[in-house]
Amino acid sequence: MRIKGFLLAIASFSILILFLFAQAAPAALKSFHVMPMPSSITPGNGQLPIDESFKACLTGYADTQLPSSVARFLQRLQNKTGIPLDLTPSLDTKQAILEIQCKGPGEQVQSVAADESYTLEVNSHDAKLIAASPIGVFRGLETFLQLVDLDNHSFYVPALRIEDHPRFRWRGLLVDVSRHWEPIEVIKRTLDAMAAVKMNLFHWHLSDDQGFRVESRIFPKLHQKGSDGKYYRQSEIREVVAYARARGIRVVPEFDMPGHTTAWLVAYPELAGAPGPYQIERSWGVFDPCMDPTKKSLYSFLDLFIGEMVALFPDEYFHIGGDEVNGKQWDSSARIREFKKREGMKNNRDLQAYFNRQLLKILKKHGKKMIGWDEILHPELPKDIAIQSWRGQKSLAEGARLGYNGILSYSYYLDHMKPASFHYGIDPLGAEAADLTEKEKMHILGGEVCMWAEFVNPENIESRIWPRTAAIAERLWSPASSEQVDDLYYRLEYISRELDSYGSMHRRNPFQMLERMAGCQDISPLKQLSDLLKATGLGVRQRARKYYSYTPMNRLADSVMPESEIARQFDILVDNALYGTNGISESSLSEIQKRLSLWNENDSKLKPIIEKSYLLGEAGSLSALLADLCKTGLESLEYIKLRQKAPESWQKEALALLDRTDKPQAEVLIAVAPSIRKLIEVAAAGMVMHVDRIMLEPTSGSKR
Amino acid sequence: MRIKGFLLAIASFSILILFLFAQAAPAALKSFHVMPMPSSITPGNGQLPIDESFKACLTGYADTQLPSSVARFLQRLQNKTGIPLDLTPSLDTKQAILEIQCKGPGEQVQSVAADESYTLEVNSHDAKLIAASPIGVFRGLETFLQLVDLDNHSFYVPALRIEDHPRFRWRGLLVDVSRHWEPIEVIKRTLDAMAAVKMNLFHWHLSDDQGFRVESRIFPKLHQKGSDGKYYRQSEIREVVAYARARGIRVVPEFDMPGHTTAWLVAYPELAGAPGPYQIERSWGVFDPCMDPTKKSLYSFLDLFIGEMVALFPDEYFHIGGDEVNGKQWDSSARIREFKKREGMKNNRDLQAYFNRQLLKILKKHGKKMIGWDEILHPELPKDIAIQSWRGQKSLAEGARLGYNGILSYSYYLDHMKPASFHYGIDPLGAEAADLTEKEKMHILGGEVCMWAEFVNPENIESRIWPRTAAIAERLWSPASSEQVDDLYYRLEYISRELDSYGSMHRRNPFQMLERMAGCQDISPLKQLSDLLKATGLGVRQRARKYYSYTPMNRLADSVMPESEIARQFDILVDNALYGTNGISESSLSEIQKRLSLWNENDSKLKPIIEKSYLLGEAGSLSALLADLCKTGLESLEYIKLRQKAPESWQKEALALLDRTDKPQAEVLIAVAPSIRKLIEVAAAGMVMHVDRIMLEPTSGSKR
Repeated sequence: MRIKGFLLAIASFSILILFLFAQAAPAALKSFHVMPMPSSITPGNGQLPIDESFKACLTGYADTQLPSSVARFLQRLQNKTGIPLDLTPSLDTKQAILEIQCKGPGEQVQSVAADESYTLEVNSHDAKLIAASPIGVFRGLETFLQLVDLDNHSFYVPALRIEDHPRFRWRGLLVDVSRHWEPIEVIKRTLDAMAAVKMNLFHWHLSDDQGFRVESRIFPKLHQKGSDGKYYRQSEIREVVAYARARGIRVVPEFDMPGHTTAWLVAYPELAGAPGPYQIERSWGVFDPCMDPTKKSLYSFLDLFIGEMVALFPDEYFHIGGDEVNGKQWDSSARIREFKKREGMKNNRDLQAYFNRQLLKILKKHGKKMIGWDEILHPELPKDIAIQSWRGQKSLAEGARLGYNGILSYSYYLDHMKPASFHYGIDPLGAEAADLTEKEKMHILGGEVCMWAEFVNPENIESRIWPRTAAIAERLWSPASSEQVDDLYYRLEYISRELDSYGSMHRRNPFQMLERMAGCQDISPLKQLSDLLKATGLGVRQRARKYYSYTPMNRLADSVMPESEIARQFDILVDNALYGTNGISESSLSEIQKRLSLWNENDSKLKPIIEKSYLLGEAGSLSALLADLCKTGLESLEYIKLRQKAPESWQKEALALLDRTDKPQAEVLIAVAPSIRKLIEVAAAGMVMHVDRIMLEPTSGSKR
Repeated sequence: MRIKGFLLAIASFSILILFLFAQAAPAALKSFHVMPMPSSITPGNGQLPIDESFKACLTGYADTQLPSSVARFLQRLQNKTGIPLDLTPSLDTKQAILEIQCKGPGEQVQSVAADESYTLEVNSHDAKLIAASPIGVFRGLETFLQLVDLDNHSFYVPALRIEDHPRFRWRGLLVDVSRHWEPIEVIKRTLDAMAAVKMNLFHWHLSDDQGFRVESRIFPKLHQKGSDGKYYRQSEIREVVAYARARGIRVVPEFDMPGHTTAWLVAYPELAGAPGPYQIERSWGVFDPCMDPTKKSLYSFLDLFIGEMVALFPDEYFHIGGDEVNGKQWDSSARIREFKKREGMKNNRDLQAYFNRQLLKILKKHGKKMIGWDEILHPELPKDIAIQSWRGQKSLAEGARLGYNGILSYSYYLDHMKPASFHYGIDPLGAEAADLTEKEKMHILGGEVCMWAEFVNPENIESRIWPRTAAIAERLWSPASSEQVDDLYYRLEYISRELDSYGSMHRRNPFQMLERMAGCQDISPLKQLSDLLKATGLGVRQRARKYYSYTPMNRLADSVMPESEIARQFDILVDNALYGTNGISESSLSEIQKRLSLWNENDSKLKPIIEKSYLLGEAGSLSALLADLCKTGLESLEYIKLRQKAPESWQKEALALLDRTDKPQAEVLIAVAPSIRKLIEVAAAGMVMHVDRIMLEPTSGSKR
């Protein structure tokens, strides 16, 4: 559901509210700052105070893990409120404020069919959480924690009844640790944050051309020669898998093959389609090195290797990648060409399907299901493989029609630096799936957010994942009807702070990066500039200069956030000023004037900081351009106030300036430029135009 | 060296600069943002760029630890610059930019006599660090890291030559983990920060009336009954000791006895001077429960216990506390009175000396030196014990005269919430030690900062320790002559950011506490208020209300910093405005007006936030008082500008307002009040008075 879906959603605004919150007034919506929004919330009367007397108890089933999960919840509740709590869940219901009733043990190994549902009932005296399995308990405790708020009396949870279950069974996040390495702490923080927004699958992209990241004891050269020393020890893998399991998150490893395998081939060139030697890739793109599917020895190797890996990764699925084989090595080799001919293969797709069939046999032998990218879809492969679609909703729907399970990743690529509202609008069961039968729809398991790592490292990765991923987590968990962009951003801001308080570095690290750039100086003017910018995606950055895996990521382009909340708010203000129901709003105009003046003056405050820092050299012209733009915006206001059409010469200059702001500068964009464009256009026209168009569009950047 | 010393120091300002930086102009001072300031810095020409080519090598001695210490340094340098570096120190000098030459292995167990000296030479091509032992290497690497700065060309280290060694051998920090528990992560972060400012001793106050915090396998009831489950496992103790050792920090455990032992006696009441049962103390003060020194079984117990503990703590010293025995149990027991009579003891001091002699025998048997608080000083104890002085410099000097080794803690108590400049002015070899012979002076080993834990928990402890402790670390490391308060604060601000970037939570956590208080709202106005306040010490808080160990610490009084840098800067501005060499400065007055207006307007912005939060209820009148004060300050400016004497009625009201601001409100103080008082006094007098007094005083609050 893209732009079209949005328009529809905006149009049916009030109907949706009634649908979702039958008993709540629209204003009450904001009081439930929960993300993802539960399937059903029925507000009650009053609220449950959270104070020193708060205790939790466990009734029903409890394994050895559950009490420590509840203790962790209590510790987080203590952190959130600052109130010392008894961290040991009691077994006695009498003293407890929150009763947690777990019905049964759930699955030995969490599967795609795991029951994650729960009900939570809160009244002014106590609360009860009921779930079929520990995973449902985890989900319910996250909801409870998010509901905790404070007023002028106490911390509290509002009285309510929640019945909740996910819309999709597969709600994943892929983290690429090959292109840039991520240490265990970052992975753990990411899992904590995923659990907070009820995601249930961590897709660990463990090998690629730029690095092989797992210790192999059978083939130690894989990590020794393929990783620059940056790999996970097997004990660490086990630790992460257990950590994820304790949060209701599956871990699916990906070993991308037969392409994207340079790092393997550095260690074992004999597996390749062309003689080596090979070197770890240091740049980005699709490269030639590729496994040779015609070699029997390859499958003996993979059998041993996969046998070793399945002992580390208990999940039912094993991701074999399978994307972006350019076929150059296969075409160049006489032996491979001969093999294809002999086997009656028409093209390299057939050869890759052959490879995948061999791989599938190995996976089955080791008790695993195969999952891979779009390219593995081939008529010769059986229906029990799953397809991860980077090609889009159409490709996903086609797979489902053919009877393949699939998950959507198209448009959930974080490195494209799209706004949360854009991702939020993408539904795995969107328009493209409209014609599927109910049974076919069941093949669409869910979606996966992808954090490809060309432009992220341990310092900035979290700021690229959060909070945007929370919006996708909601899209995959909540009923399809949650479509209000303003409410989305209100709750995103809330969840962003929550994640920060749980230990995520997505807000802190960008701040520290600004402090680094400024040296030992007050960074307020730099923060001001940074808050008005937005980061650019993979494409812009790759065109801007040649990047390598060892290129420092310490510039503004690496720290600026993917979207600017200040810009979004400003855009709303501009829309109110120009297109309000009562015509042009003078008070909004004067608020705009205040902000533009402030931003305009920032340039001179920033200058001395920029002059002292080589990392900020490129920020100078950016800041000056922003200042010019604000100045032109201020001039527009004068024309608008006087209801005058601006002179032609002014228009020409203003539009030339706008043209410059459309292009990235220093690999970032001025986030407030589109709103200032609106002011300039109205000043140039001497009247408010296009009211219909603007009124119908969502207030944030889904059109970008 | 207290106020008197300060005045002297200010008076001899220029002489000091010449003394310390013979070759540097005063302006160059600020370019070396190193803390503690090295014994000697000789500036060179040019600077050494830090870029992708930076490599370090180890020459001379290297044990198994040193390469990983250097790797950790390289990782931190990478974090500081954002430049990916080769993290493995090479053994080849040719490629290296920084050569680290370690002469020898140092001590097996770090002692008070450890050689911490190093020399660091940096030119525009490379750098060389030479140290006698790994500990000297650690110290030098911290200096190198702090020297890294950036300009408009690159990151760099200025060319210079440093010869550095500590003035005192004992530079400690006591952390009380009994009154409030601190988890291992907080301890580790504290050790990291200590290492950054070259402190060499972590004094772990592990038992007190409120908790016994170490696992004992011989006497498991100690931690089981005495800790509420909040204790360190033996494996964790070993981990901390090793962590500290890898940073050149000794760990001295303190088991406070025979008083402050309620938590022991909960588990083993038979050790007490009165029949139990006992309960863990939940409040603060000096309590009656005390060990019974007349029982032989006590010494068998302690022999076994200490035998167990010395296996965990390799340090040569073992701290036995010995403070604040109120003697009530001893006086009440007929048996104990009889024992004293029989042994010819005049008083409880004699009885405690008897206890200490028995304890000393046990410690000697286990190869340990005894250290304890002032009270253990008794003519019957031998000279090889060390005394930690909480009674002050005079007591310390007396001990030294008697031949006892001693360390100063008086005036290094962080819970008194004094400003850094106050602590900075206290010298273990200050005026009180002036009459000591050189040999006697050698008995004064150094000092220890004390973080008592009545009002700190894992969330706010770091904000009470840092950055103030860095000032004391400098007092104990650097030459006695470093006395410039402005430069101190300039470097404190720098080191504070450094520590933050190394992972310390001392800046982040108070911010998150404000976010908690405000709920899901923009906290800027609350931050503004908070920045103009300062925290109050133990005394004020204890008088304000009854506190228990389980009282939430989530209020403004718990988050506000011990000093306000904004207030300090404002005070300098006010002094410039009123007492500048050219008389009253109009430009400074208008800057004052700008700030007072801003702060005055803050109250109305804060109101809606306060109204929504029960945690901020008490902040309302505080904010209103500050607003009133700023308004009165603004009125003062009008009189001052007109060189008019304010009318009597205005004066009366203004002074009444000032009286209110002298008293804590909501257990905090308005940090800018003393500066506004200056304005009001000048307005009331119609002229600038007391120029001499004010000119001679240091610009920050050492008079508090």
